[in-house]
Order: sequence, then C-alpha cells, then structure tokens
Amino acid sequence: MKQKKKEKIHIFDTTLRDGEQSAGVCFTQEEKVEIALQLEQLGVDIIEAGFPCTSEGDLRAVQEISSKIQNASVCALARAVKKDIDIAWEGVKKASIPRIHVFINASDIQIAHQLGKYRKDVLRQATKMVSYAAAYTPYVEFSPMDATRSDREFLYQLIEQCIDAGASTINVPDSVGYTIPEELAQLFSSIRDQVPNIDKTRLSFHGQNDLGLCTANTLTAVQNGARQIELTVNGIGERAGNTSLEEVVMAIHTRKDFLPFYTDIRIKEIYRTSKMVENYSGMPIQWNKAIVGKNAFRHSSGIHQDGILKLRETWEIMDPKSIGIPQGTQLVLGKLSGRHAFRSHMQKMGLDLEKDKMEKAFTEFKILADKKVKVDDRDLEAIANTHLYPIEDPPWDLEHVQIHTGDKTSPTATLRLKSPKGETKIDAAVGTGPVDAVYRCMNRITGRKPVLSEFSVKSVTEGIDAQGEVTIRIESEGNSFMGRASDTDILVASAQAYINALNRMLLIEKRLKRKPLAKSKEGMKE
Amino acid sequence: MKQKKKEKIHIFDTTLRDGEQSAGVCFTQEEKVEIALQLEQLGVDIIEAGFPCTSEGDLRAVQEISSKIQNASVCALARAVKKDIDIAWEGVKKASIPRIHVFINASDIQIAHQLGKYRKDVLRQATKMVSYAAAYTPYVEFSPMDATRSDREFLYQLIEQCIDAGASTINVPDSVGYTIPEELAQLFSSIRDQVPNIDKTRLSFHGQNDLGLCTANTLTAVQNGARQIELTVNGIGERAGNTSLEEVVMAIHTRKDFLPFYTDIRIKEIYRTSKMVENYSGMPIQWNKAIVGKNAFRHSSGIHQDGILKLRETWEIMDPKSIGIPQGTQLVLGKLSGRHAFRSHMQKMGLDLEKDKMEKAFTEFKILADKKVKVDDRDLEAIANTHLYPIEDPPWDLEHVQIHTGDKTSPTATLRLKSPKGETKIDAAVGTGPVDAVYRCMNRITGRKPVLSEFSVKSVTEGIDAQGEVTIRIESEGNSFMGRASDTDILVASAQAYINALNRMLLIEKRLKRKPLAKSKEGMKE
Repeated sequence: MKQKKKEKIHIFDTTLRDGEQSAGVCFTQEEKVEIALQLEQLGVDIIEAGFPCTSEGDLRAVQEISSKIQNASVCALARAVKKDIDIAWEGVKKASIPRIHVFINASDIQIAHQLGKYRKDVLRQATKMVSYAAAYTPYVEFSPMDATRSDREFLYQLIEQCIDAGASTINVPDSVGYTIPEELAQLFSSIRDQVPNIDKTRLSFHGQNDLGLCTANTLTAVQNGARQIELTVNGIGERAGNTSLEEVVMAIHTRKDFLPFYTDIRIKEIYRTSKMVENYSGMPIQWNKAIVGKNAFRHSSGIHQDGILKLRETWEIMDPKSIGIPQGTQLVLGKLSGRHAFRSHMQKMGLDLEKDKMEKAFTEFKILADKKVKVDDRDLEAIANTHLYPIEDPPWDLEHVQIHTGDKTSPTATLRLKSPKGETKIDAAVGTGPVDAVYRCMNRITGRKPVLSEFSVKSVTEGIDAQGEVTIRIESEGNSFMGRASDTDILVASAQAYINALNRMLLIEKRLKRKPLAKSKEGMKE
Repeated sequence: MKQKKKEKIHIFDTTLRDGEQSAGVCFTQEEKVEIALQLEQLGVDIIEAGFPCTSEGDLRAVQEISSKIQNASVCALARAVKKDIDIAWEGVKKASIPRIHVFINASDIQIAHQLGKYRKDVLRQATKMVSYAAAYTPYVEFSPMDATRSDREFLYQLIEQCIDAGASTINVPDSVGYTIPEELAQLFSSIRDQVPNIDKTRLSFHGQNDLGLCTANTLTAVQNGARQIELTVNGIGERAGNTSLEEVVMAIHTRKDFLPFYTDIRIKEIYRTSKMVENYSGMPIQWNKAIVGKNAFRHSSGIHQDGILKLRETWEIMDPKSIGIPQGTQLVLGKLSGRHAFRSHMQKMGLDLEKDKMEKAFTEFKILADKKVKVDDRDLEAIANTHLYPIEDPPWDLEHVQIHTGDKTSPTATLRLKSPKGETKIDAAVGTGPVDAVYRCMNRITGRKPVLSEFSVKSVTEGIDAQGEVTIRIESEGNSFMGRASDTDILVASAQAYINALNRMLLIEKRLKRKPLAKSKEGMKE
C-alpha cells in the first residue's frame, strides 16, 4: 500500500435532529443539552441541534445548546422557506460557529407528488433561500433531498447554483436509503466531474439504513470525495435510522491501511456517549449491534474463547477498552464453550481444581448447558458449587409469608424462615411498600443487609391471573447475586427470589473463605 | 443498464449454528426444529443446523431436523478432525441432501497462536479431512477460517487442494469482521483468477458484522463471484453477529436494476421468521433495525408523513406488507408531525373536525408533544379528547385500597372507588394473587370486564425502597388502552394504573358513540 497523506473527515452529528426523528423518541431540553455537551467531548465537528420551526421547545433547546457549546459548530435545520430560516437563525445566532442547513426535495417523484411543483420552481426557491440564509451566516449547508433518486443533470445544476448562492457545504442525502455502494461511488465522482464550482464547497454524505448499507455507503462517499459525513450515535433516526457514528469512525480507525483518512473523534468516549443516547432516547441497542452492542466483544464459542485466551488478536480486531468499555473482552460460558474457557473461568473464580475434578465439573456443566434455555455465569457457579462442595448446612428456607398493605395502611410483612441450622425464625417489619417490607423483614431475620440493585417483574403468561416472574439482584462486598422466582402472587415471588439470591450469596462467601483445594498441573499462569 | 440473465444466489442459513453462538442464546431442541421448519417455509437452500460434536443435545437436534426437512439441504459443522466429522455425519445422514461443513484456521496469526502449528500442517490436515468427509457425502463445504486475514498465496493453495479433495463448496469467511468491500472485491476476483480448479466448486461468503459492513460485503462478494451466501435471521451470531438474511435478500430484491441476481426466498415469510427467531433467541431486535425493526416502516417527521399521505413511494422503497408486516406503513404522531398527518390521524379515529377546531387541537398537540418525553398515540387521543370534549361526568376515582395476601392466605383486596356520578362504592374480592384480587374487585365495582393483556413493573429509582412504575394494557371490543402509575407500593400503583386505563377506555367509548361534530371542508377522501 503506498502511503498517502491522511485527510480529515468532518463529523456532522445529527443525533439531536434526525436521531430525534425516530418514532417514539423525544428528548427533553435538558437531555438535548447534556447530549450536546457529550458530543463536544466526543469531538464531533458539527452538532445539528434541531429543526427549530417545528416547535417552540425545539427552538429553545437549540438556543441553549448554541450558548453552551464552545468548540463545535451548532447547526439548525430549515426548509427552503423564509420563516424556517429566520427561526433557524434565532436558534443558532449565539453559537460560536452558527450553521443553517437548508433543504428542498430534489427527486422528480418528490417534486411532483409531495411539492406539486416543477424542477424550475425548486431551482428558483433553493437558490433564493440559500442566499437568504447566507446573509445571516457564512456557514450554510444545502441538501437536495432524495438526491440519490434525483435526475442527475438537474442535480448538478441545482448544486452548482446553490454553491454560487453561498452554500459552503453541499450534502448529498440518500434520504430513502435506496443507494448501494457501487452506484453511490459513481454519483459522487460524477458530481465532482460535472459541477464546475464543486471545489468551492465541502461535499457531504447523509445515509439512511433502510437496506442495511449505511456504513458502507458512507465509507464509499468518503473514498469518492465526501469530506463531511452525517451520523448519529447508535444509528438512531427516522425508520431504520441513520449511519452509526461508532461504526464509521471505528472502520476508518481500524482499516487505516485501506482508508487514508482520520477524524477528530476521541474514541475513548464512544461507549459513554452511546449509553447516554440509549438512555435518553429509550431506544435499546440490540445485543449484536456492532461496536456498542452488549455482545460486540463477548465470545461464546469454544474455539473463539480458546483463541482469545491464547492471544486476543486471534479473534478481535479492536480492543473494547479503547472505546471505553470498562469490562473489556468477555468470555461467556455456554453450551459451546470448551474446556479451556471453562477452566480459565473457574480459575478466575478462585477455583483451581485437580484435573479429574475439573473434568467432572466440565461434564456437569455441559449437561446443564444443554438443558437450560438461558445459561448465565451465576447458574454455572451455583451448579459447580453444588456438585463439587457438598452443602453441610442447608441454606435459608421460606416457610411462610403474609403481607398486609394499602394506601392508607403501613405495608407490613410477616415471615417465617428456617435457618441454615434448622431453627424456625419468625418476625415482622414495616416498609415503604410491600416488597420493601418483605426485604426489611428478611434482613432482620437473617442479620444481613445486601443492597438491592435491581428489581423487575414480568408476567410469564398472559391474562389477569398471570404468573409473575420476579428477578432481583443484590450486591454485597463488590459481588452481585441474582435471584429469580415465579408465583401467581408477585409478593410471594419477591420473597422467594430474595431467598434464592441470599442463599447464593452465602454459599459463594463460604466457598471463597476456603483455600483452593489444589493447584492444577497446568498452573495458574496460562 | 444492459439486461444480463439473472443468476441464482443460494441462501445458506446459519441461524441455528452461528446464530446460536450469540452470547446468551441457547435454543431448545423443540425451538431448533420449529425454526428449521420455518426456514424451509421461507425458502432457504441450506440449513446449517448445528455443531454436533459440541454436545449430545445439539447432535439430537441436528438429527431431528434432518429427519423432518424435505426440500432444503441440512448441514452440520465439524472441525477438520475425524471425530467431529463422524459425529457431524451421525447428525445429517438421514437428511435428503446431507452436507458436512469442515473448517480449519487459515490465517498465520491463528495458525501460530491458536493451533500452534505451521501452514503445511494445516494444508495436510484440511485436505485429508475434506476427503474423509467426502467419503460420507458428495456435499462437502470447506471453510478456511479467517480467510480475509490469511496469506493470499497460501489461501489459493489451500482452496485448490481442498477442491481436489472433494469440497463442492468453498466458503470464504471474514471470521473477525475485518474486511471492507473494496478489499473483498479484490480477494474474490483474485481467488477466481489464481485458483485453477475454482470452477469445479461453488464459491460462498460468510461475513461478521464487527464494523457494520456485513450486508455490503455480502453484496460485494455476490458481485464478484459468490453464488452462496451465509446469513442469519436478524443478523444474530457471535459478537456483533452475522449478515442479516432480511437485509441482503431485500437489497437484492429492491435493487434488481443494479444486481442481476435472485434468491428463492419467499419474502412474505420474512417478518414471521424474524419474530420467531427474536422470541426463541431472546435477542430483541432494535427499533431501527433495517427491514424488521419496529421503526423500519414508521414515519414520524412531518415532511415524511406528508409525502407518504400523498404517495407512499415518495418516502418508501419497499412495501412493508410485501414482507408480511401486517400493519403496513405507520405514521406516528410526535412533536415533528405536521398538520397533514395530524388531521389524517384524527380522521382515522373517526374525528373529522371543522377547520378551526382542528387548528386548536393541533396547537394543543404541539404543546403536549414538546413537554412529554415519550408521546404515544393514546396520549394524543386522550388529550385531544380532554380539550375538545369537556368531560361531563368525572371518571372513576380511587379513594382507598387495602390488600391482605401471603402464601397461606387467600389474596384479598378491599377497594373504595368514587363512581363517575359521585357515589362512593366499596367492595372486596379474592384473586390468585394480590394484583388479580385488585383487578377482580375493580371489575366487580365498575361492572366491566376488560381483558388484561399486559402487565409490567419496573423500578424507577434504584434501591430497596424504589418507586415502582406499573404499566398495564387492557383490551375491550378490539381496542386497547394503556394505564400507567407509580408508587412505592406496587399494589397501589397497579390499582391506580388500572383506573387510568379504565377511565381512558370509558372516555373513548363515550366519544365514539357521538356522531362526528362536523365534516371538515377538505373531506374524508384525501
């Protein structure tokens, strides 16, 4: 590969504008400001903060972002009409680098059927409004909407005249997510060939992910002359969303050998930004989402785990810690895991068994993993414990639970438990609600006070008398323990789930206090 | 575009093998069989059913699938070792078209660090084991693992010798999701140039989505000679997953003009298959997932909604009904929606207001949409109702709730409600659990029996005395109504949520019984 000088790609983030166009997403003003500050921290060049003419609230959010952002440009969207542009300017005028983004339909299907106009009307309106915006600020971006389905000759003409009218950035949007890389490469190179004044502007690309091709299209645009790309965190946006910032940035970063470009993104901030947007948008990231999905750096197959344990790079092209994922690479035990990963996992838990015991534990684990629909590490720990360490004292057992509650009474729980030593213990407690009362009473009887860090109920079957499944997680001395139980009475299920978590905690505490039974022959260092 | 003869692309589905390698996913045998039957219905050519040497259960699942699938080929994975191949054959031998898929590491980094071997060892082992598998069946697939990071000359040699040894399909896996389309195009065309016997086999591509480029890479492979592609439903799989079947199939289908290929997939079955895999894998599809995400065909921006109402094709390149999405295109009301969508929505609800009332309702809606973090259609309906139709009678009001429950008592609820007419009504009821008791008591007092179709609780704040937020949905005469409430006592919250849903139901029922206030001037037909 010959070494070219690397060129900068400007990152235009539209999480707060096109991202908010996702059905079901609506950021509050506070959330928008907080996300904008994090985007600046991430190092984006331009923040598209909103579409101020759509609502009073959006205008206020754009104004506040403009007053708080120091380094990035702040941009507001506007249709190619005076009123929109005036309001957009109201939004960004206090920004240090204020940008107005003007758009108009450019494809024949949209010009005819949405606008009910002709190409010549679009041309006149677009140029007039770009120059109207350019009177407010030198930073004017123009987007011929649905560019990838537009007539090529008309598109060249529209772009040329809008550059003359003062557009400092020309964005080429694939508004309906229709294009494929091969076609887009041709489009970009022909725009550069056919528009005589194209060098007076910066070319940009905006993709939509309807066919799952956004990330590739964006890289193609960059390889064919785009020096600005429009992205959103987690790829949120209208319909199937926009191009994922994290995917494009990490592709450019990881494939430096093929892509002689760089961005100013601080990749260490990627994970934090992604989590913030996930929380505020309420759009959960799927497990198998590239870069930021829960599974993106989790390995479950035996062969992959074996390779990772020998040398991380055998199965990973990026280091999860570099993008700020605190736990780094994770090996997940499941039915496909091999001996190597199983032993490594056991060793991390402080258990270094003799070879034959390890073999026995591995067999037990394979049987379990085959039976259970969902296997998690705690299940495996618990089963390993059960089979390898006979429980000398039985754990806590729930004998009876009784609850009295209401909006004008004090929620009260009465419990009878059997202790590990076989004694029956009964007591009562009052709480802020009936679940709280149950847990306070548990703590009173068992003498332990773990922190309840998660509590959720879901109905397992449908209908009014559905079984409720309660899942809880308790934390004690840095370790966490899950408990789960089902019952038609969610309060009884809550009590049983708590007992399950507590018993698991006590068992593991007891085991960690023993010294390891024996060193394995392979040693700890492998 | 000149018209080429369309070539068939063979679809190799690995949802049940690589898909199951997703961390946290483990199908039961019954689920695997059910998914396999649905994949046959979908029209895939090859079903990779499992990796039988990993567990007894997986072998049994592959055997059962082999005995039930009629039209598709059934494939089992095996490392390039005798034992694996023997077990793989045990799995597929009863299939009508039994395939064995043999793989071995091919990149230097994996050969050296994972296998601890040399290239010549790999070459010898691979050819020996391919011919061992070919003695069982003529349908042998060979994968040089991590092909995209392998030494090119070694890769050509390995492929050539494995074809001679009997591999009827050569799969080129991008096992760590490292390649980009430009590089992959070169790799495929050089394999076709450099491997002399390449025409004796079928070329295949297997992508991983670590950089978000899977779909594009797969199309690139097809454009450069691959006639089999390896996909999973919803793109599930190890780490960031595999190539999404639905994305690639719909890209080929939608961009026929650029891609002279076809598949035998019945696209009408896509949505059903996707939902089945989502359910059984427990891996939720993100809203903005292309093709099958909840938002893929939902439009929320005013401009898009306006276009869709005028002509669907202005903003959609695929018809959601064609892939089996029952509700088709959806317009979602939110703060970005314009008048046109708002009026269309109101008309669908049976409300066709005079122009000034519509304008007033639209203003109210914009204010609401600005304030609320999450806006849903029901909220809008409720608010529209509140503002347009004064409530003559106050709805039901919860005055007092009292619950007694436990594992050895009969859960009993006592409620005092104020009726719409201002009367105080008190009654009690017994249920299978305390929530059920509350709801039965509600029904007894109000004289209504809607079906409870959803009930969920989540903790709003952390810790043992967290506020619980209860969301319920009730159904009555084909309509559904949400209710939501928070309280430290989840039973009190449940009662309040039910009252909220019930009130909404009563309000809307009352409104639907009125005749529309007036016809709008624009009429109903637009």
